[in-house]
Amino acid sequence: MKAVGVTRQPPQRQGGSSEMRLTIRVDFGAHGALGPGKIRLMELIGEKGSITAAGRAMKMSYRRAWLLVDALNRMFREPLIETQHGGSGGGGAALSVLGQRIVTLYRQIEASATASATAPFDELAGYLSDTPSEGDISD
Amino acid sequence: MKAVGVTRQPPQRQGGSSEMRLTIRVDFGAHGALGPGKIRLMELIGEKGSITAAGRAMKMSYRRAWLLVDALNRMFREPLIETQHGGSGGGGAALSVLGQRIVTLYRQIEASATASATAPFDELAGYLSDTPSEGDISD
Repeated sequence: MKAVGVTRQPPQRQGGSSEMRLTIRVDFGAHGALGPGKIRLMELIGEKGSITAAGRAMKMSYRRAWLLVDALNRMFREPLIETQHGGSGGGGAALSVLGQRIVTLYRQIEASATASATAPFDELAGYLSDTPSEGDISD
Repeated sequence: MKAVGVTRQPPQRQGGSSEMRLTIRVDFGAHGALGPGKIRLMELIGEKGSITAAGRAMKMSYRRAWLLVDALNRMFREPLIETQHGGSGGGGAALSVLGQRIVTLYRQIEASATASATAPFDELAGYLSDTPSEGDISD
């Protein structure tokens, strides 16, 4: 028997669903926003101890990495990224205690958001086309 | 007594938190992604019955609105947006049943994501600076 009316039956899982991922962005109005780019940059600064190296790992220009760090350091009560000047290596960078806390909170929000939405998430995945088309434009 | 070590006490709510908003983006790997832009465009197409009018309401070029519609129509098993050609008005557009369902599911994920993360959300808001700085760069 063939289905009529379509799209209303419980959908089956497909290949695409295993690649599905929820990303969040927290918008603070006039304070700006925290999204996956800033958070990943902070995590990489924590790992690499350098803003330049962290930016490079994200294929980001030196200038852009520093602009993001500057924006992050103005957004909250205290700087999230601390820089040390001097030394032959040109100084390094590290996350402050608040910086580490902000990253943790962001990842917590992301994890609970993903866990909270299993049912609609699975239904959405079931509607994906069988053949992914190329060249999707963002957003 | 002054707090030492900072950032570990339960933070107070501030002005910024009332403006806080969670936005989600669902990434489907090779199938592309669904974010606030595509969803808003679909909602406006549903309201206005026209892709051009919906794009205009988002200050989006005619070309970009149509590219997004095309991407959306290839992403799932069936088109999400149906267009009618002909007539003196040049034809209109409407959301298909599946299109309406996708918008509903996206908004459900967004609502449950927001509801699930109240505690970390509030803590994050409490750390915002008192004076929002201007010119934050995105992401």
